[in-house]
Amino acid sequence: MGSVLSTLEHPIVQAPMGGGPGTPALGAAVCEAGGLGFLAAGYRTPDDVRSELAELRQLTERPFGLNLFVPGPPASDRDALGRYAGALASEAERYGVELGEPRHDDDHWGAKLALAREERVPVVSFTFGCPDRAEIAALREAGCEVWVTVTGVDEAMAAADAGADALVVQGVEAGGHRGSHDAAAPADVGLLALLQLVGASTDLPLVATGGIATGRGVAAVLAAGAAAAQLGTAFMLTPEAATSPAHRDAMRGRGPTAVTHAFTGRPARGIENRFMREHEHEAPLAYPEVHNLTAPLRAAARERGDADAFHLWAGQAYPLALELPAGELVRRLADEARGALRQAAAPRGAQDPKDSQVP
Amino acid sequence: MGSVLSTLEHPIVQAPMGGGPGTPALGAAVCEAGGLGFLAAGYRTPDDVRSELAELRQLTERPFGLNLFVPGPPASDRDALGRYAGALASEAERYGVELGEPRHDDDHWGAKLALAREERVPVVSFTFGCPDRAEIAALREAGCEVWVTVTGVDEAMAAADAGADALVVQGVEAGGHRGSHDAAAPADVGLLALLQLVGASTDLPLVATGGIATGRGVAAVLAAGAAAAQLGTAFMLTPEAATSPAHRDAMRGRGPTAVTHAFTGRPARGIENRFMREHEHEAPLAYPEVHNLTAPLRAAARERGDADAFHLWAGQAYPLALELPAGELVRRLADEARGALRQAAAPRGAQDPKDSQVP
Repeated sequence: MGSVLSTLEHPIVQAPMGGGPGTPALGAAVCEAGGLGFLAAGYRTPDDVRSELAELRQLTERPFGLNLFVPGPPASDRDALGRYAGALASEAERYGVELGEPRHDDDHWGAKLALAREERVPVVSFTFGCPDRAEIAALREAGCEVWVTVTGVDEAMAAADAGADALVVQGVEAGGHRGSHDAAAPADVGLLALLQLVGASTDLPLVATGGIATGRGVAAVLAAGAAAAQLGTAFMLTPEAATSPAHRDAMRGRGPTAVTHAFTGRPARGIENRFMREHEHEAPLAYPEVHNLTAPLRAAARERGDADAFHLWAGQAYPLALELPAGELVRRLADEARGALRQAAAPRGAQDPKDSQVP
Repeated sequence: MGSVLSTLEHPIVQAPMGGGPGTPALGAAVCEAGGLGFLAAGYRTPDDVRSELAELRQLTERPFGLNLFVPGPPASDRDALGRYAGALASEAERYGVELGEPRHDDDHWGAKLALAREERVPVVSFTFGCPDRAEIAALREAGCEVWVTVTGVDEAMAAADAGADALVVQGVEAGGHRGSHDAAAPADVGLLALLQLVGASTDLPLVATGGIATGRGVAAVLAAGAAAAQLGTAFMLTPEAATSPAHRDAMRGRGPTAVTHAFTGRPARGIENRFMREHEHEAPLAYPEVHNLTAPLRAAARERGDADAFHLWAGQAYPLALELPAGELVRRLADEARGALRQAAAPRGAQDPKDSQVP
């Protein structure tokens, strides 16, 4: 098992959740409760990431993780971006903002890799692709453990070949961006099927993520062979998360989720809203160009508390998210998972899953 | 727990698999090995179902199940059916057949319900909808246990209200038809998320299905609170299954699966092939009209061993299906599941999921 995973008191990892909910306070609370907290480097400047690392380290001395987005090529179809900007003109007017510049960027890839090495971040995870062998080797040499997010067996094999220490196995249930290495072909495999498929293909430790919201969910992925469960949406209603009020309100409803690339140009799962319904068909697959284009619009809608026009990232099990302090949630999930596993492992006849006292 | 579920030696149920793979030999082998075998009433005449029940009962005295399709309304858009028939004309020519009559039927609903009662079938399960309270009550009075397939919380609540004894919880990973009660809005929730959501909404015993192919997969759904795991695709390469040679060959490949309504007019998951790619966009949602329309075409392609033009139903974990006798498979899955649960339930530190000897 990965060295950091084997030191955890509880096999529970907090998903990074870039662009909002993830905070140093949340990461530290998870670490202090015996899980593994994460910071999200995506969308932030290297200086901001450096400040957040310092802030987290003020709050906990335990190991933690930092997630980086792997950059892709610039959009090949600038005309499509122009057309999408045209289609969003009335939205911009409605929310009283100018659309952003649909520019490409690499999210400060080199600087963030250097920062992770320099800061000897205990776990550095990657989404949207796999760093190359040299980049992974340099991180490991600096004392970082390297995790790569995968959504299919091919991606898992590529990450293993490149030298990853562990794989974050992301099922289609997951909230937020699909971690698929090719945004144009996002995998749609359910977590439990994917864990079995990837587990049959590699001996690397697996961190399971996607739709895990309860102790029973944690127990399930451990039984399926994962070394730990990673939960994002489940932490979004904790007081430590920076989830916006309108987003919290939407999560108290029961609307369906769907995968959309209308907000950022890359497929991501959120609670369905008007913007997704009206613009999905005309949005190009161009990340981060579309992200940069729609950012002012989404910020304005969020500030107004208007859940119709910003991204309400949430996994399929979001109705089960609890409004509890993050540390309490970690301990509760771990207790419930242990109980569920003990119960399921009891000889048949000695158990009845529905009648017992396990929560 | 449902009375039949509590009598099983192993918490393993064979999915019915109408239209081919399911056979009395397969059902009986699963029952004799300590699981619960199933027959599929769908697409068959009541007389054929009666013969299969007799055949199964010759082979085993243990409890078993029979699955019925709940009929829906006739297609409202006959023109769309006409257009689809036109679009398939060249396929018909290619395979040297006449297309079938796109007629509606209720799959002998009343006669099959009567047969199930008369034969006192131990478990009668339903797909595509929920029987009404009176139909369920009549079955229970006759000594049948009633299971209803659900793909979302609303369907689970409706089935519980109608008096179901247990719920078959079908994740998006599942092969074959989506069991969603509204074919026009098939749920896309992953099994693990769905088990947690449904488990939080009802105390009925849950039978988990969708993408379960290994003992670890069985262990996972038990840990998630299911009373049993139901596997279909995992049994399709057994010698007892009537899976066609071309279908078996396709399952030895690694092609992706997708959900399609091009073959039957109702969403179903299969290994992607030419027919799906070429006709998905023009197929109406009209079941069983489209099923009846394409049936001769699919039969001809299957007989020729041409996997391009018939339905290759398979769940997302199909690459893990084993070519073993069904009884051996049941025992192996159960052993592996027990091992996985024991291991996951062991105190942390005393275990390492990736290094142990559990298969």
